[in-house]
Amino acid sequence: MPSALLTDLYELNMAASYLRRDMHQEATFSLFVRRLPPGRGFLVAAGLEPCLEFLQDFRFEEQELAYLGEHLGFDDQTLSAFRDLRFEGDVWAVPEGRIVLANEPLLEITAPIAVAQLVETYLLNVITFQTTIASKAARCRIAAGGRDLVDFSFRRTQGTDAAMAVARATTMVGFVATSNVEAARRYGLSVAGTMAHSYIESFPSEKEAFIAFATDFPDRTTFLVDTYETLNGVRTAIEVIRELGLSDHLGIRLDSGDLEVLARQSREVLDEAGMQHVRIFASGGLDELDVDRLVRADAPIDAFGIGTRMGVSADAPYLDSVYKLVEYDGRPVLKLSAAKATAPGRKQVLRGPEGDLISLRNEPAPDGSEPLLVPVMLEGRRSGPHRTLETGRHLFETDLANLPEGAKRLDAPQPPHARSSEALDALTSSVREEILRRAGVL
Amino acid sequence: MPSALLTDLYELNMAASYLRRDMHQEATFSLFVRRLPPGRGFLVAAGLEPCLEFLQDFRFEEQELAYLGEHLGFDDQTLSAFRDLRFEGDVWAVPEGRIVLANEPLLEITAPIAVAQLVETYLLNVITFQTTIASKAARCRIAAGGRDLVDFSFRRTQGTDAAMAVARATTMVGFVATSNVEAARRYGLSVAGTMAHSYIESFPSEKEAFIAFATDFPDRTTFLVDTYETLNGVRTAIEVIRELGLSDHLGIRLDSGDLEVLARQSREVLDEAGMQHVRIFASGGLDELDVDRLVRADAPIDAFGIGTRMGVSADAPYLDSVYKLVEYDGRPVLKLSAAKATAPGRKQVLRGPEGDLISLRNEPAPDGSEPLLVPVMLEGRRSGPHRTLETGRHLFETDLANLPEGAKRLDAPQPPHARSSEALDALTSSVREEILRRAGVL
Repeated sequence: MPSALLTDLYELNMAASYLRRDMHQEATFSLFVRRLPPGRGFLVAAGLEPCLEFLQDFRFEEQELAYLGEHLGFDDQTLSAFRDLRFEGDVWAVPEGRIVLANEPLLEITAPIAVAQLVETYLLNVITFQTTIASKAARCRIAAGGRDLVDFSFRRTQGTDAAMAVARATTMVGFVATSNVEAARRYGLSVAGTMAHSYIESFPSEKEAFIAFATDFPDRTTFLVDTYETLNGVRTAIEVIRELGLSDHLGIRLDSGDLEVLARQSREVLDEAGMQHVRIFASGGLDELDVDRLVRADAPIDAFGIGTRMGVSADAPYLDSVYKLVEYDGRPVLKLSAAKATAPGRKQVLRGPEGDLISLRNEPAPDGSEPLLVPVMLEGRRSGPHRTLETGRHLFETDLANLPEGAKRLDAPQPPHARSSEALDALTSSVREEILRRAGVL
Repeated sequence: MPSALLTDLYELNMAASYLRRDMHQEATFSLFVRRLPPGRGFLVAAGLEPCLEFLQDFRFEEQELAYLGEHLGFDDQTLSAFRDLRFEGDVWAVPEGRIVLANEPLLEITAPIAVAQLVETYLLNVITFQTTIASKAARCRIAAGGRDLVDFSFRRTQGTDAAMAVARATTMVGFVATSNVEAARRYGLSVAGTMAHSYIESFPSEKEAFIAFATDFPDRTTFLVDTYETLNGVRTAIEVIRELGLSDHLGIRLDSGDLEVLARQSREVLDEAGMQHVRIFASGGLDELDVDRLVRADAPIDAFGIGTRMGVSADAPYLDSVYKLVEYDGRPVLKLSAAKATAPGRKQVLRGPEGDLISLRNEPAPDGSEPLLVPVMLEGRRSGPHRTLETGRHLFETDLANLPEGAKRLDAPQPPHARSSEALDALTSSVREEILRRAGVL
């Protein structure tokens, strides 16, 4: 169970202050991404499930309270109020797997302000990161044009927990497997993997290594052929396949060099040997642009292992995400800071044939439009249908099929713009004027 | 305790194959970074401590073995061999906090090949990520020129575990505090934080919010002044400081706009009010280049909150790290793959007045040179002095002081080159020839 101390100190300061002043009124916070990174035409919502688990179990344990008292100087009255805190609020959110755009709320929390504030850091962290990865991995899916993709990122993600989230997010956007065994166990994913160069090197020769591995795994051998000289490696694999009489689930893996050239040459050597059924697997520092180039060149590659650059979303490793107070005690609020202005009020996103419309929560939806935010927790309890990774995958496939071509472009994508409703614009103007008047600026 | 399933499937395949063939001979694997990213002049070693904990406790639990049998098809003989596996090998490593260069081993493992192979994924993941972050944070230290730095990255690191590692790594390279409460508790760090814009917005006016917060935290109030209009905010903070008679640990925080201009204007307003003791804290999407620009411009900023771009190492979110077999059963080995060639044998790095020399482990060290790799685990038990975060910080400060100026440059740094010893070069040549001869290429 994640600790309630997974938060920034200022959240605790603010919560303590609210509780001390009996400010128990409801606040609504909205979590959204202000601008997309240059290389993104859309985002894929991810990370909701762990957030709901966190909210459901939210509480301070005694040793956590002791730390806050002894080391951070919180007084007994505050610790006592923290002890009683639970999350009993409402959460509206975009289900995982759906495609979202800039300024569209991914999640809105309504709860007494202290607890709604305290959970900010965890929710922002988890949704930002998992949405970052799902969005990057979705680009790989687009690039692959139907060829298989396997998550190979575990060794260089930003920590081992990050690797779990990457394995889960990549499955949601259509990767067929992960190399990550713990993630496969935890989330019920398919797992894939073969051999490393070190395996080949630990035998007196490449051929002896191939024979050993294929003897041990006769029904799932992919020969890593580039340890010494790639085409020699392919020929050795062919010899071993013949000598051992192997037939099922055979492949070779190319992990270095010019993959397009080596794939063509390898395919030719395999085909000449009557081994059309041996698949070619490519890996080695690939990202979606490399995959796109290889697919467009029609390189005879059946599957790609995608690693580090996807697993850290190297070209855009974070999103400009925020968690903003939009309503307090029934009063819509906003922030005026230069270049960081926000829109007030509880919101909805209505997806229709004309594109997305960001509206106030209770505005009537135009005919033929679908609301993206659904209630997923009411009064602290999970609500709505149980959503699995499969549900997310289905939502992603549907949204991807309906996405404008410009948004799907890998190079200089054109993100669709979500319009805001007239009612939302009117509310924004009136709240802004009211604040400026109070601040003495107008 | 981290699971032994925190590994790639191919590690399990290879280990199973080694165990089935009674290949229990010792292997040495070397973990190093092949090339530095363009924006890095040096790296700071980090992540060793969790790796040693992982190795010390390494074992498969029954439910993990059950998963491998039932879902991944490993046979009983293999599961039985996995059940008995422990890490009883040796680890030589560069202590955390030391500065290292490309091609210098950060860690070398010597153990029976199956277990040495199985731990690859975890070790690579943890050392790569933590070294990535420590190296990025070290650049912030250089930029800050003695001003205080606080880790503000928690909300947008790649997962919550990543945030823990960032808090720890930033402290090691001299940050004075973190906003991350759980990390502070776990690692005994200093924690810092004030208020968010939402706090201001939840009161009828900025002044009421400032009074409430300062009443609740009279000995540690930093007023966030940019919610509505920054200089108005500064004047309001001054009024509240006077009205409440505050005197200790006071500050204002600027989080948006032109920080250089606003800091000068704020300093002027504060000084005119006789408030020279009120510190100015700046935050808002800063990285080391922003900090450098502000420090060079002599902006009157006392402390910087550094967030997302440091916490994900945005310009270089991963390192080109590898874990390579360099010796098996007493025989030095290497890989010839195009552009990925490695050097064989157990190694040492000797740091002397002429720079770094990568040598074989047992070569005599030249006079006045210091070995970077030290034995940290022997036969599966921790060895050598107990190293704390403080030890790491001390090592970092010493190494930083001795680093050539070109390596410390923030823009287009010049990483020093680690030479290789004659004995290492000679071994590399002879092993390469031997492999080519065996492969039939020579």
